Amino acid sequence: MIYGYDPRTGATVGAALPETDSAGVDMIVSAASAAGSAWRATPAAERALALEAVADALAAHVDELWQLADQETALGEVRLRGEVARTAGQFRLFADVIRDGGYLEAIIDHADASLTPPRPDVRRMKHALPGVVAVFAASNFPFAFSVAGGDTASALAAGCPVVVKAHPGHPNTSARVAKIVRDALPYPDLLGLVQGMQAGIELVQHPGVVAAGFTGSVAGGKAIQRLIDEREVPIPFFGELGSVNPVVVLPSAPVKEVAAGFAGSLTLGVGQFCTNPGLMFVPEGDELQRALAEAVEGTTGGPMLAERIRDGYLGGVERLGELRLLAEGKPGEGAWAVTPKVFTADLDAFEEKLPRIAEECFGPASIVVTYREISDLRPVLERLEGSLTATVHGTDPDEAGEVVEVLGRKAGRLIWNGWPTGVAVCWAMQHGGPWPAATTTSTSVGATAIDRWLAPTAYQDWPDALLPDELKEGNSLSVPRRVDGRSHI
Amino acid sequence: MIYGYDPRTGATVGAALPETDSAGVDMIVSAASAAGSAWRATPAAERALALEAVADALAAHVDELWQLADQETALGEVRLRGEVARTAGQFRLFADVIRDGGYLEAIIDHADASLTPPRPDVRRMKHALPGVVAVFAASNFPFAFSVAGGDTASALAAGCPVVVKAHPGHPNTSARVAKIVRDALPYPDLLGLVQGMQAGIELVQHPGVVAAGFTGSVAGGKAIQRLIDEREVPIPFFGELGSVNPVVVLPSAPVKEVAAGFAGSLTLGVGQFCTNPGLMFVPEGDELQRALAEAVEGTTGGPMLAERIRDGYLGGVERLGELRLLAEGKPGEGAWAVTPKVFTADLDAFEEKLPRIAEECFGPASIVVTYREISDLRPVLERLEGSLTATVHGTDPDEAGEVVEVLGRKAGRLIWNGWPTGVAVCWAMQHGGPWPAATTTSTSVGATAIDRWLAPTAYQDWPDALLPDELKEGNSLSVPRRVDGRSHI
Repeated sequence: MIYGYDPRTGATVGAALPETDSAGVDMIVSAASAAGSAWRATPAAERALALEAVADALAAHVDELWQLADQETALGEVRLRGEVARTAGQFRLFADVIRDGGYLEAIIDHADASLTPPRPDVRRMKHALPGVVAVFAASNFPFAFSVAGGDTASALAAGCPVVVKAHPGHPNTSARVAKIVRDALPYPDLLGLVQGMQAGIELVQHPGVVAAGFTGSVAGGKAIQRLIDEREVPIPFFGELGSVNPVVVLPSAPVKEVAAGFAGSLTLGVGQFCTNPGLMFVPEGDELQRALAEAVEGTTGGPMLAERIRDGYLGGVERLGELRLLAEGKPGEGAWAVTPKVFTADLDAFEEKLPRIAEECFGPASIVVTYREISDLRPVLERLEGSLTATVHGTDPDEAGEVVEVLGRKAGRLIWNGWPTGVAVCWAMQHGGPWPAATTTSTSVGATAIDRWLAPTAYQDWPDALLPDELKEGNSLSVPRRVDGRSHI
Repeated sequence: MIYGYDPRTGATVGAALPETDSAGVDMIVSAASAAGSAWRATPAAERALALEAVADALAAHVDELWQLADQETALGEVRLRGEVARTAGQFRLFADVIRDGGYLEAIIDHADASLTPPRPDVRRMKHALPGVVAVFAASNFPFAFSVAGGDTASALAAGCPVVVKAHPGHPNTSARVAKIVRDALPYPDLLGLVQGMQAGIELVQHPGVVAAGFTGSVAGGKAIQRLIDEREVPIPFFGELGSVNPVVVLPSAPVKEVAAGFAGSLTLGVGQFCTNPGLMFVPEGDELQRALAEAVEGTTGGPMLAERIRDGYLGGVERLGELRLLAEGKPGEGAWAVTPKVFTADLDAFEEKLPRIAEECFGPASIVVTYREISDLRPVLERLEGSLTATVHGTDPDEAGEVVEVLGRKAGRLIWNGWPTGVAVCWAMQHGGPWPAATTTSTSVGATAIDRWLAPTAYQDWPDALLPDELKEGNSLSVPRRVDGRSHI
């Protein structure tokens, strides 16, 4: 049986939930697959309406949902109300995306008899992967990266049914969200939910599953990849794993703002973000060190999402203890509460301990590394693993020099004078990065996240009557297309 | 040492070539990597000129190249001259692609303070993968899928250096083409060449390699995937493996044209195409059977590319011998010559032997399966593995019914009243399909093949001065962009 736990007390929340057994996983995937055949054939305009109905349903239940999630995560009302709004917003964005039709990447090359050899009529667009998408929910976003999170919204938008493996950190929230989404969909079985680790293993190895999405630790991602490697038919695995998110503070950056911003970003949500700034390079100098120490000392910790996550943080902090403690915040309250801690070292001492010292420590801990000259940074940055984000603080772009080039190869999202926590869900957002930050070159946030669940088909001399509407000569849906080598809207 | 062989005589061609040893592989990858840093920073307009210089150089050497390749492949002057032209054409297409700029998928969302939370300025585009692309050359296209083939052209266009593992079927042609391309590039080391199986293993496991492309057998692809799985940092593997390419002949199709077209497509290039029609479903009836038998009997075989490939064909034909022989062509001439063979069975007998009977037999062999009703086909088609192509012949689109839906899930390219051999290299072409036809949802032919070597970066509130030109507000390069949710050219 599975229980939810209250991070503030360690006590169970709600009744025991059964783990999904093998027969259950098979039934849920089969039901999703059957519903998926109808969904795949549903016009984009109708799919868009269904996504908006899901958004409305989530928004309508926000009072109930934030309270339920707060019991299981202790993330608080403001954050959780905001996260429900973001989650609903993700469904609305994908409704816009599929109405627009650009995601299909429709291309038409008309026949050309003048070429050698003569060219037939060739038309191409993307379609939903033919099968069920498995989603492994994250711990740290009980809504936005969980049952009805971005993976689910983008896969449903693409035309795929989804089966989610609930995160054990919030099983009751997961079950409730699944019920709300299922009730809002035209085919409730388009969203299935399984609970329990064994169910997750069986899910990702089920022959009806054609792709998997996951957000979590590097170890967790590697474990899922191994399970996929055992499949007879391999499937793509879209994992987003860990991330240390380096920040470079240039000499021109304003000391006070940097210190305050850093402390705020580091401790937001008890540091439980994959975009948490776990490593910051700052110019030598007492003023910035003092400002940072003061800012960190002004923070307060809090309970982490799960006992296991708290234990992981304590282990990570012990590893960072090889460095000098720069400052710590006030201990938070609650059964699984932790204290924010920031360690420091100079560039040489830090480099000596690479790569292990720069591994992610999930929670409100970070390393501040001091440098003398900006030009000293490059060889050290070059040795960092891939991250989701890299940030530069400064007032003079000229100062950034080579730092920008190397950071551009180390992270998928570059931020100027901001903080990596907080990800705008929009058309241009890209949330991924070089391995291990992501297992592929795709994104899990933003409009292009839909691309993970699509595959192209080319139609050669195909009769207009049999072409999808998006590729028929008349273009009645006004889909953006590239025709004979030129973009057309 | 490595030798080229003449398929007509089995004798060696040219002098012995040394296998590339470990130090050689490392040196070649390192040199490519160094040249790649400069190439990555080269504006697209200059990269386009370089690609056109390569196209010109290949075209200028066509007389020499076809003769050299003919000695090693026996594919003949017409085919090989055409293939050099196609290979040059691929470089020209990718010059157009990078001049156009749409491949960058540039998206701009301006800051919006009215949103909750306020949205920063977010801009996104794709960049070349930061490292060397490894290409495993195919046997059956000594130019178009080899050293200077589509993988190499698309990777160079993207901004990546390339190291090719030469196919042992044409080592001298490979070395000559590499020399011509290197001499035409602004940085010759952008194209490296290694020879020998051990060198291929070391190449794909080299830490400087960031992606790999391969066209060949399912077994070969699985072997490369296993090598990649052993890497510390995993890399994407773009493999195109085997393919049986089902053809469905509807009752309305014209008998004579179908028979003639089938025999021609089956025996083109001694059947050595991944798009070879290895399986055809036809309506019951003596007329079509007779026409097919006559057409096949009118064909002549020829020498296959390598002794090992010939042996593989003979083994495949033995497996197909479980079925009844419908007809065979005349034996070809030459040391490694084979005879075209077509086998037949009714739908039930064929289905009983699935899945093994429908595995690819590389060469001029195929199975003709007879059906009574079109509606009988669906459950059998549903059991086929993924293919690169699926073809329908008929004059009445209404007749195609459910056949079209299932074929759309089984192949990446759908052809009406044509034959799958012969692939137009254009913007809309898609050359891939469900596993095992391809290991990913990408294409190895056509303009979008470049997408395999790219990864997106998002820039948040990034200073205009530091943005790539393609994302600066002024858009001086007139790159197609999506701005605030709308496509702009």
